Amino acid sequence: MNISQRVQEIPYSAIRKLTPYADEAKAKGKKVYHLNIGAPDTKTPEEFFYAIKNLDMKTLSYAPSIGVKELREQTAKYYKNKGIDFDSDKEIIITAGASEALLFAIIAVSEIGERILTCNPFYSNYYTIFRECGIKPQTFDTTVEDGYRLPDYETIKASVTEQTAAILISNPSNPTGAVYTEDEIRRLVRVAVEEDLYIIADEVYREFVFDGAKFKSFAEIEGIEDRLILLDSISKRFGACGARIGSIACKNKELMASFVKLATARLAVATVEQIGATQLYDVSEEYFKEVNEEYQRRRDCIYNELSKIDGVKIYKPEGAFYIMPQLPIEDAEDFAKWMLTDFDVDGETVMIAPGFGFYHNSEVGRNQARLAFVLNVEDLKKAIKILGLGLEKYKKLKNL
Amino acid sequence: MNISQRVQEIPYSAIRKLTPYADEAKAKGKKVYHLNIGAPDTKTPEEFFYAIKNLDMKTLSYAPSIGVKELREQTAKYYKNKGIDFDSDKEIIITAGASEALLFAIIAVSEIGERILTCNPFYSNYYTIFRECGIKPQTFDTTVEDGYRLPDYETIKASVTEQTAAILISNPSNPTGAVYTEDEIRRLVRVAVEEDLYIIADEVYREFVFDGAKFKSFAEIEGIEDRLILLDSISKRFGACGARIGSIACKNKELMASFVKLATARLAVATVEQIGATQLYDVSEEYFKEVNEEYQRRRDCIYNELSKIDGVKIYKPEGAFYIMPQLPIEDAEDFAKWMLTDFDVDGETVMIAPGFGFYHNSEVGRNQARLAFVLNVEDLKKAIKILGLGLEKYKKLKNL
Repeated sequence: MNISQRVQEIPYSAIRKLTPYADEAKAKGKKVYHLNIGAPDTKTPEEFFYAIKNLDMKTLSYAPSIGVKELREQTAKYYKNKGIDFDSDKEIIITAGASEALLFAIIAVSEIGERILTCNPFYSNYYTIFRECGIKPQTFDTTVEDGYRLPDYETIKASVTEQTAAILISNPSNPTGAVYTEDEIRRLVRVAVEEDLYIIADEVYREFVFDGAKFKSFAEIEGIEDRLILLDSISKRFGACGARIGSIACKNKELMASFVKLATARLAVATVEQIGATQLYDVSEEYFKEVNEEYQRRRDCIYNELSKIDGVKIYKPEGAFYIMPQLPIEDAEDFAKWMLTDFDVDGETVMIAPGFGFYHNSEVGRNQARLAFVLNVEDLKKAIKILGLGLEKYKKLKNL
Repeated sequence: MNISQRVQEIPYSAIRKLTPYADEAKAKGKKVYHLNIGAPDTKTPEEFFYAIKNLDMKTLSYAPSIGVKELREQTAKYYKNKGIDFDSDKEIIITAGASEALLFAIIAVSEIGERILTCNPFYSNYYTIFRECGIKPQTFDTTVEDGYRLPDYETIKASVTEQTAAILISNPSNPTGAVYTEDEIRRLVRVAVEEDLYIIADEVYREFVFDGAKFKSFAEIEGIEDRLILLDSISKRFGACGARIGSIACKNKELMASFVKLATARLAVATVEQIGATQLYDVSEEYFKEVNEEYQRRRDCIYNELSKIDGVKIYKPEGAFYIMPQLPIEDAEDFAKWMLTDFDVDGETVMIAPGFGFYHNSEVGRNQARLAFVLNVEDLKKAIKILGLGLEKYKKLKNL
């Protein structure tokens, strides 16, 4: 009786592994500012709660395996407003968050032992889902020096091997906040077409793009209808992470038939949350605008505050709500732990996600950290100030 | 660009594959009695709806990855009342239905290419989940002739190979309704201990045991704490299938650490449904008694009505809400389809799940069907009458 190799190879979550130390700090009365996890504090639109408070239901039955019809229609309508066409009955399936959508995508496109190509750094939970499915990542590098832009066509192309089944990309990027330009997207598309690869596009942060920039979805690129799998989620878009409602959209009929098989096996996604989520799409454009503006203020704040800290290498993230700076230390995990166990400013400290867990076969992340700017500007300012003081003290302690 | 072999090998759900024909029949105005799917019509206790209607929440945040604390406590309390001890903080994780609990169990205990031992027939969605995880089933047979009792120790023992990682059993059984005696359970336990296998026990139908029989849980057997993984769900127990709330309980620390990794990667289970589910466990014992009595009436009804049909081979299921009779025809799938497309009695017909999909490497199921007795007694009586008339006509048509 053993624990399977594939599970043993899964590290503890980069985002949550220090949680026990945070819990301990809190138990001792410390206040902990959480920059480690991308859980937005924005209010969920009241439409969600209104819908579930007005439920008239006697038996909480299974929803259809592919999702509640009205929610699929709302999702299609949302895309249509963006100029993207998906048929709500045949090309969209509701999933338990984008996590399940990714699980379905990987199982359907990859054989055991194959590889999914993505960029370093990448969302750490991808790795766990890869290992669950018996596959491994393959990566090309992006760097903090140029704000994690994608490398040139030749570099991406050279990273494809016989084993590559698909390219997976998160855009806007978790963990870096990079928003890829149309040119960058077309670089990936060119490689995918030339090498005959699927494209799995994780666009859950699509509403979080700053400075008035226009987000370019993979679904707007012509000629890749058969190879594109679009993952999405209401979690960040509507500050509704707890609903666990995502979706998978795809025009490839065979793939969709595969996703239906996988959706059928787990029977359905939670009914009540789907009913609530259906109403979310009725919020006004004003809602998105306000949320977007709030996150842009936070982005500006974290960028400005981090700029003031000596030795921190940063860039200006254009989207999502993450920044992945390089810190003037050697081991960000040790530092992150120390911040929780040994440091505070007037009883307050900060929790960050060490960068190492967002990289595959790379040491670059050792002195990096992912910071989620999911706090209001005032708290964020305080948190980064504490981080700066922490860095100063830690550097002295380590003679850095 | 291909669809992966593992997904190609997944058949369309035995339970739902004829749904398009049922939809067509309904579109033509036919009434279809659904005996194909185990979706109970019993009312969800009001406690669930009351809890979610009284939600006071601004932001629908992620629940903890291992589940809402109160729900874990309620689950532990439920077990404690049955004389089963699980620590709510360390030995129980809330999952998206028992389906996800099974997914976690399989990924954690099996290497790619290994086998899970179960009995023929088995719940057809097991197969899909096996294939998702890169493993295959291995089976020993049970037969309609003796009401699907487990075979003797030697037969079970002989079915274990080098590749076997675990024994998976559903008790009470989906699809047969068999409830295994303590002796049968100990037979499996003996093999598991001798061969050093995990035991994955799917006990979601534990409240559906008839004729006053006492249900024996694997968790009541001493000496297997380290190898037992208990899957459970509120779906059938509380007529709350749509909540997608299940759990995995286990005393093996290493396994639990593995499940936590897997739970963390998918972030959380739906928050609102967990809040509702927490309240369900406050229903009175009377609730279980009433539901149980109702299903016993239905079991009696379907048994009696099927007994009247010429050539149908049956037995008395002791639990769950399924019966798996042998029909006096050659191809139950063709018959099931024909019932939807070509047959009705005064505009009414019946949908059944063909038996073949519940078997691995066996033709035995070809003339069997799984019937779920999830209709009230009156409808059930009508449905089985229609089934009998259908069989009569179909037999003539096929010269049987």
